[in-house]
Amino acid sequence: MLRVAVAGASGYMGAELLRLLGVHSKVQLTAVTSERLSGERLDHVFPHLRGLSSLVFQEVDPERLADEADVVFLALPHMESQRAVPVLRRRGRRVIDLSADYRLRDASLYTTWYKAPHVDAAGLAEAVYGLPELHRKAIAQAGLVASPGCYPMGAILATAPLLKSGLGRPEGIVVDGKSGVTGAGAQGRKTDPMYLYTEANENVQAYGIATHRHTPEMEQELSGLCGQPVVLSFTPHLIPLNRGLFTTASVPLGKPASTAELVALYREFYAGEPFVRVLPEGERPTTRRVLGSNFCDLTVVADPRTSRAVCLSALDNLGKGGSANGVQSLNIMMGWDERSGLEAPPVYP
Amino acid sequence: MLRVAVAGASGYMGAELLRLLGVHSKVQLTAVTSERLSGERLDHVFPHLRGLSSLVFQEVDPERLADEADVVFLALPHMESQRAVPVLRRRGRRVIDLSADYRLRDASLYTTWYKAPHVDAAGLAEAVYGLPELHRKAIAQAGLVASPGCYPMGAILATAPLLKSGLGRPEGIVVDGKSGVTGAGAQGRKTDPMYLYTEANENVQAYGIATHRHTPEMEQELSGLCGQPVVLSFTPHLIPLNRGLFTTASVPLGKPASTAELVALYREFYAGEPFVRVLPEGERPTTRRVLGSNFCDLTVVADPRTSRAVCLSALDNLGKGGSANGVQSLNIMMGWDERSGLEAPPVYP
Amino acid sequence: MLRVAVAGASGYMGAELLRLLGVHSKVQLTAVTSERLSGERLDHVFPHLRGLSSLVFQEVDPERLADEADVVFLALPHMESQRAVPVLRRRGRRVIDLSADYRLRDASLYTTWYKAPHVDAAGLAEAVYGLPELHRKAIAQAGLVASPGCYPMGAILATAPLLKSGLGRPEGIVVDGKSGVTGAGAQGRKTDPMYLYTEANENVQAYGIATHRHTPEMEQELSGLCGQPVVLSFTPHLIPLNRGLFTTASVPLGKPASTAELVALYREFYAGEPFVRVLPEGERPTTRRVLGSNFCDLTVVADPRTSRAVCLSALDNLGKGGSANGVQSLNIMMGWDERSGLEAPPVYP
Amino acid sequence: MLRVAVAGASGYMGAELLRLLGVHSKVQLTAVTSERLSGERLDHVFPHLRGLSSLVFQEVDPERLADEADVVFLALPHMESQRAVPVLRRRGRRVIDLSADYRLRDASLYTTWYKAPHVDAAGLAEAVYGLPELHRKAIAQAGLVASPGCYPMGAILATAPLLKSGLGRPEGIVVDGKSGVTGAGAQGRKTDPMYLYTEANENVQAYGIATHRHTPEMEQELSGLCGQPVVLSFTPHLIPLNRGLFTTASVPLGKPASTAELVALYREFYAGEPFVRVLPEGERPTTRRVLGSNFCDLTVVADPRTSRAVCLSALDNLGKGGSANGVQSLNIMMGWDERSGLEAPPVYP
Repeated sequence: MLRVAVAGASGYMGAELLRLLGVHSKVQLTAVTSERLSGERLDHVFPHLRGLSSLVFQEVDPERLADEADVVFLALPHMESQRAVPVLRRRGRRVIDLSADYRLRDASLYTTWYKAPHVDAAGLAEAVYGLPELHRKAIAQAGLVASPGCYPMGAILATAPLLKSGLGRPEGIVVDGKSGVTGAGAQGRKTDPMYLYTEANENVQAYGIATHRHTPEMEQELSGLCGQPVVLSFTPHLIPLNRGLFTTASVPLGKPASTAELVALYREFYAGEPFVRVLPEGERPTTRRVLGSNFCDLTVVADPRTSRAVCLSALDNLGKGGSANGVQSLNIMMGWDERSGLEAPPVYP
Repeated sequence: MLRVAVAGASGYMGAELLRLLGVHSKVQLTAVTSERLSGERLDHVFPHLRGLSSLVFQEVDPERLADEADVVFLALPHMESQRAVPVLRRRGRRVIDLSADYRLRDASLYTTWYKAPHVDAAGLAEAVYGLPELHRKAIAQAGLVASPGCYPMGAILATAPLLKSGLGRPEGIVVDGKSGVTGAGAQGRKTDPMYLYTEANENVQAYGIATHRHTPEMEQELSGLCGQPVVLSFTPHLIPLNRGLFTTASVPLGKPASTAELVALYREFYAGEPFVRVLPEGERPTTRRVLGSNFCDLTVVADPRTSRAVCLSALDNLGKGGSANGVQSLNIMMGWDERSGLEAPPVYP
Repeated sequence: MLRVAVAGASGYMGAELLRLLGVHSKVQLTAVTSERLSGERLDHVFPHLRGLSSLVFQEVDPERLADEADVVFLALPHMESQRAVPVLRRRGRRVIDLSADYRLRDASLYTTWYKAPHVDAAGLAEAVYGLPELHRKAIAQAGLVASPGCYPMGAILATAPLLKSGLGRPEGIVVDGKSGVTGAGAQGRKTDPMYLYTEANENVQAYGIATHRHTPEMEQELSGLCGQPVVLSFTPHLIPLNRGLFTTASVPLGKPASTAELVALYREFYAGEPFVRVLPEGERPTTRRVLGSNFCDLTVVADPRTSRAVCLSALDNLGKGGSANGVQSLNIMMGWDERSGLEAPPVYP
Repeated sequence: MLRVAVAGASGYMGAELLRLLGVHSKVQLTAVTSERLSGERLDHVFPHLRGLSSLVFQEVDPERLADEADVVFLALPHMESQRAVPVLRRRGRRVIDLSADYRLRDASLYTTWYKAPHVDAAGLAEAVYGLPELHRKAIAQAGLVASPGCYPMGAILATAPLLKSGLGRPEGIVVDGKSGVTGAGAQGRKTDPMYLYTEANENVQAYGIATHRHTPEMEQELSGLCGQPVVLSFTPHLIPLNRGLFTTASVPLGKPASTAELVALYREFYAGEPFVRVLPEGERPTTRRVLGSNFCDLTVVADPRTSRAVCLSALDNLGKGGSANGVQSLNIMMGWDERSGLEAPPVYP
């Protein structure tokens, strides 16, 4: 059994990791940390796990984590991961970081968007962007995996085949993201009034308009795919549901293409992928159909009136948009079947 | 008291009209029709109105409606309005049509998008698009008002100042609409499984991809504003809430502009409007804040990275996106204070 | 115009008062207070009211309120009302208190349930329980009205005819309350994690089990009706909706009765009441049908198997269960039509 | 691998069986039936299962099912199960019936509550009520298991220790059930307007008042536990969430008892049970904490004021209240670990 620890397990991303890793047949959870909850029993903090674990939250101590685990998941706030990673890496531990700290390869971009300098240049240099559909081989060898943000996961999977093939043009892309409340900034159980039931229920709103930090992640990966700088417009939205991330991306096409041709392109691009489902022409993705799973469902439609493609993806922001995707990366790193621990179908309805 | 009838009052648009007109101080509701519910008491069908009305649904008979009312609201399905309008107009009745039948001035566009020929060319010729902020004077004189669809209302109000001023470019516009379930095709109390609680709850999805019938309405009005043909990409979404329509429109800018300049432009464009609230820079619209009212809240943000403006509007699809806006048109037609019957603040929370 | 102030207007009860009083034709809102928001514009704190008010929150200063208003609504936390009331009453101002401070006539009961002594015996002595259907005449003369809690309103209206008639027995009554989140302790925009969207959504739970403070209120009023001490079992629940309070009360019957007889009894008891709707046999109340209004819908069903009556009520916890009912009391105190300012039908759907 | 078929798999109960059985390590799904969907691919009807199954719906043919499966789950409407069971039993197949057809041992009770005579007396005679915590040994030997209704499961588990011990009295019990929409009559994807999103959302209501068919099931099992006839009052409610069933039962106590004593009694009664979690004094069950699982969380509180116990249970109506409990019965019948296929923790949040 591989010894695995989860640092920063008090948020929803951490809770989802515990739910998945707790029944992963090749993994033993050996430690969970939380500054806030140190000393408390895991199943007292998370009553849904009552009877399923006897772990107790401990403080975030990278040296101790290195003693107790072979692989460490970090579900810490950004800026905190880059303090823990150097210790864990020095001790030879492999790390899957769910924070934003190692996603941007260009440290100056980090400074621009996160308003603080990055302190672990060595980590940045070795980090692999944890998107298996694009970087499977690198993940397999990685010591440090930077797991994507939920919005970038949705946007990149929705548009990658177009950018990679050259059919999609790099300018004029507009991405509209719609996230459930567990994904939209509430992962640390924040109590900003915006996240109160009475305020978020029966309500839709945009936020982070023209400034959301997931934007450069999308641009980095799509630029890499098409070989040219992609600058795109991204607007995230808070939607009244717990889990679910829906992405609507509009991509200008360099030449005419039918929906059937686009679907064929997507089918080829994602051939063999265990967790990406390219829907047949005429079917539409919904977040409900992927809830609780690592699936991402995709639809692409040609719009000849505007010479654009409408690219739609649905995923669970805690699933393929977060913790489950992290477990997929773990499976790749260990050489296991990528479905290990991720076999359970989506919860419907 | 003006005698007013509502035809097709069994759907949600009709119910909202009844809620508003029932307490409008200058109006007397004299007839309600419904094919399906003919003979049933209004307050039995709509128990929220129990004790507030003694009306009984009657069949849709335009001649009888012309006898009983001075102004007739039509909340009928499209194709049915164009059968009733000629009779009502011949009898000299003024009509406010909430269906799609008279919104597109070009009958061939109607045929293209609605897959059927239009049968009332005379009506089309005289119809005024019932968007007070653009066509107030014409509405005041109109015999037939074609009240806008909910998505066009959100999209047009969000972008009109940019198109009118020439700052917004007519190509490359991308409009993303998010609608509550009362607006997204469920107005007739349809029982398509997609609208079941268990299916729509905790779910987000797009529909009508690249083919939604509200698209040509947006293009018609925005083309009129900018003097050039606007062709835009529109994607509607079904969101798990009852009421609310949020629009996110991305408009390419012809020259650089700051958010402050854009907000000033919007302030000027909508100066004096009783129901459009241009929010100060830094504030964001939410559908909750306009629920049950005729308000439309607007935010515009410049994105210098992409040379685009992000234009956001929030309205209630049954309010400014439907019935309440129809009442505003009625007030304009009658020369009354536009706020008559629309005084109640939004219901919060 | 009557000058009216609202103290403690930052919570949802206060906001609902502002929504209603702002369009009450006989009332002028002259002051709003909030410790937390003092100095802020009302329409900045409550953006749904943008453009509808130019008031600014001030500190809670009873002397100043007495200067500025003829009638003062108190939407303060309990313990705070009893500090403001003596000043307001000394200055001759009439007060409608929405807190729990003056609801229990027996000060020792207050101490038992609220864990603190009551400090205003004089106020307690003159306070009238603000339930118009039971105490209309006293309210008309009252200087101080103690507006009922939302759960007691639902439970008392649901069962009063049975207790008053002697048909219902005073022991063995079981009351089950189901409240939307605006009513269940979240009125002050509390940020207890229990009220977060992610926790309250898709969830049902009981709370305050066997200890909820609304219990003695129910017992006081029902004991008064039947002339014997009523001791009942009450369990409140938090339900995932914003507004709505549904009560299911099971009352043992002293002798057999049919549903038709029970409905007739209720019809007679509530004859002429403008806001209580006793539904015909076979129809069932739903919270949706009273949303945003002062209505309370009632159903009573005989269960001959158990010799009990099932008594059901539906109301809006901010409506008949709170602020709207307070406005009804104001109307009674002023001798106005009880429907003044409460004319708007429920918002559906 | 045990060959298992699911008849009536088009509803939500069936879908949940497919979700669970599809990843059960000892089971092979060999057939799924649906009159309505015969000939359609399972993963077309249930897109969340896309890629996870190649089964095709077939018609309900008991002879064919007997050929294809060793154990057959029936998720059929009542009255249909009793037509299939005799064939399957004659062919020696073991059956787990999720319908109501075999739950009431007294055929006359069936006739009374279901308004139709029962046609399979032999089946009734051999059927075992599939509640493992009460009938584990009989289930292990059973050829035909009648899986409990969701409300009875919640009510019986919540009160069984009191009735069995004699501490709870058999008269005066009041049970209040609150169900998510997947459980409250919508399992067959019914399109009654009551189940539309726009009607069920932001709404609470009671239904089946004093007449719900789950009542005699509760009485049968509780009478069996206490050795006296139990007649109880049960009221079910429809709550706006997809999954979740919360039960609030009020049980008169024959003698005084503290909460601690009651909790100890429950702990002893459910000692060793893998899926019943008796919460410590002071903690409260919530449906969220059991979502997607076979757990039932329980709290019991003494109310000395009323000499009653408040008994609370939370379960997933498709989980312990339906399909997952059926899988637990299968595990017992086969002599497998009862947790087989039910290992996944609840989905939170």
